[in-house]
Amino acid sequence: MEIKAKDRAACSVHLSDDEKDIVIIDQRALPNEEVYLRIRDHKEMYRAIATLAVRGAPAIGIFAGYCVYVLSVHFDTDDPGKLCAYLKEQGDYLIFARPTAVNLGWAIKRMLAAADRADGTDVNRLRARLKDEAVAIHDEDIAMCRRIAEYGLSLIRPGDGILTHCNAGPLATSRYGTALGPILLGKERGIDLKVYADETRPLLQGARLTSYELLRAGVDVTLICDNMASLVMRNGWVQACFVGCDRIAANGDFANKIGTCGVAILAKHYGIPFYTLGPVSTIDMDCPTGEEIAIELRDGDEIRKMWYEKPMAPAGVACYNPAFDVTDHELVTAIVTDRGIVYPPFDKGLKELFENGKDQDRSFF
Amino acid sequence: MEIKAKDRAACSVHLSDDEKDIVIIDQRALPNEEVYLRIRDHKEMYRAIATLAVRGAPAIGIFAGYCVYVLSVHFDTDDPGKLCAYLKEQGDYLIFARPTAVNLGWAIKRMLAAADRADGTDVNRLRARLKDEAVAIHDEDIAMCRRIAEYGLSLIRPGDGILTHCNAGPLATSRYGTALGPILLGKERGIDLKVYADETRPLLQGARLTSYELLRAGVDVTLICDNMASLVMRNGWVQACFVGCDRIAANGDFANKIGTCGVAILAKHYGIPFYTLGPVSTIDMDCPTGEEIAIELRDGDEIRKMWYEKPMAPAGVACYNPAFDVTDHELVTAIVTDRGIVYPPFDKGLKELFENGKDQDRSFF
Repeated sequence: MEIKAKDRAACSVHLSDDEKDIVIIDQRALPNEEVYLRIRDHKEMYRAIATLAVRGAPAIGIFAGYCVYVLSVHFDTDDPGKLCAYLKEQGDYLIFARPTAVNLGWAIKRMLAAADRADGTDVNRLRARLKDEAVAIHDEDIAMCRRIAEYGLSLIRPGDGILTHCNAGPLATSRYGTALGPILLGKERGIDLKVYADETRPLLQGARLTSYELLRAGVDVTLICDNMASLVMRNGWVQACFVGCDRIAANGDFANKIGTCGVAILAKHYGIPFYTLGPVSTIDMDCPTGEEIAIELRDGDEIRKMWYEKPMAPAGVACYNPAFDVTDHELVTAIVTDRGIVYPPFDKGLKELFENGKDQDRSFF
Repeated sequence: MEIKAKDRAACSVHLSDDEKDIVIIDQRALPNEEVYLRIRDHKEMYRAIATLAVRGAPAIGIFAGYCVYVLSVHFDTDDPGKLCAYLKEQGDYLIFARPTAVNLGWAIKRMLAAADRADGTDVNRLRARLKDEAVAIHDEDIAMCRRIAEYGLSLIRPGDGILTHCNAGPLATSRYGTALGPILLGKERGIDLKVYADETRPLLQGARLTSYELLRAGVDVTLICDNMASLVMRNGWVQACFVGCDRIAANGDFANKIGTCGVAILAKHYGIPFYTLGPVSTIDMDCPTGEEIAIELRDGDEIRKMWYEKPMAPAGVACYNPAFDVTDHELVTAIVTDRGIVYPPFDKGLKELFENGKDQDRSFF
């Protein structure tokens, strides 16, 4: 699959035209303002990751790749060994910006390994190798998203209503995103869909990010509160649900943003197909079922305070604030991956996906 | 059923000890502050209704009854005819504070009819009659709520987890409320329950009012976002769902706050009993099914702006903001009324409830 410069430039993280800076859209300012940041300083890089100006596991990985390259451009030396040592030191620094972000450490290690492999060459060739590696990380993600988008698009028809929950769009990944991929790819091809975006309490990723991304792409999007999904389905407006996934167990159970499981139950009740979309790297064959997936609990003030100073609930009221829930595989119509669509029985299908894919490029993770 | 002064005084709307003012809790300030207002002036009465300092159909009716009485106390005359004329004029004024509130007009008319019936008596006796009528309106509501609470309490066991949506508590009615009645009555009797309150987007009645009411009563309440109800049920924490109702059709379909239908579908999926609680006056036998119930659509800014100035969604994004949804009778375990519990088949049960109740006191509506 050929990736073009314009595909990269359309992403929330990309290299500037002169290849001296990283350009990112500042996700902290969305959806009220579109602020683009040009970054080349290592402290700004650290801050961008730590303060969530750039967020989403794949986007952080892409950003980290470009960080190592851009740092190499601005470090003034003729000694490849010195450059490698400097980049190692910077990588050790950047990785602490968000220690739990797996893709951050993964991308930095991959870049440093590329630098090591270029040992014995001159600094300019070393920089060129680093640029190639950073672009490869980016391109692999774009290609992965596009494959998911193609598979997803094969499941729906022009004019369909699609309900989505949370955000699995380009801001968090590249070019097309995962769950939003079929919608955005469809739009490019003149296939119009009508999207209902759950606002996704408490952090409102649907209101802030999904509706922003779709509106910007010219997609017909309607924002709803999470508790309106049932009525929207009852009205006959939804022909398919597309959601992302954070982790898929070997039996097809999967964890995703809180509320996903409820959407799946509603979809089953109304006889609407329910799909989860994500890269093969999301599948954890060492995790037999959803029962083994631990649910992160977050601070109740996210519910009580609604992003503002003035509380919207009485002080001291207990809150239960799980960040994720697990959707039972029996509620899932199919799992859409970058290597194809897996239908039930999922334990068999996912196993085959892994066995058949052994020789394929698995470099993404 | 004997209603005591302390039952009345515990309500969100009641007469002051000296019987010269109406005391209300200012619902606009909740849950951050508990502000009590003493009201005797007709302009303050109008403002309290119009600005939702007092809200909830039954509470507005109770307030309106006391308004007419308190106005009679402060109008200086010895002429009963003049007093009646003055009250009629004031009633015509107050009714415009919220023209669509059925209970407002109903209570004012009932008070003016009581005044007319006292024609030929002196002003002090007239005032006494008005006080009796206002107290009767209040007491009938308390008795109605208590009967619902008793019936509802018979459906659950100590230690049960109860999930509720929106607010159908004492603030909107009297003493016990409807859906919260069994919980509050249980608390008085030492029956401890664990309540999960949906915050109920977009207007957050669950966060602002339900959790406030339950916390104040010492009930173990946990606030959740609407999209967390599925996980709470999946965890095995919910043994029954209690919700209010705005209108019940003859076949048992009912309209209630948006999101109610989704809760019912989740409850069915997890095998949890789902009850709606409300007075018989909520049942509309002239409405054959839920299909005939029109759904009010509200301004999308309630979703986009989240009560604050700074929008949480991109400007111009379309929103679908229905205030209610309709829950299919097949999802309902039973309808709990002040005249008993109705089980399926609801068309037969509700018809019998009406036929058997013809001779009963129906004066509430």
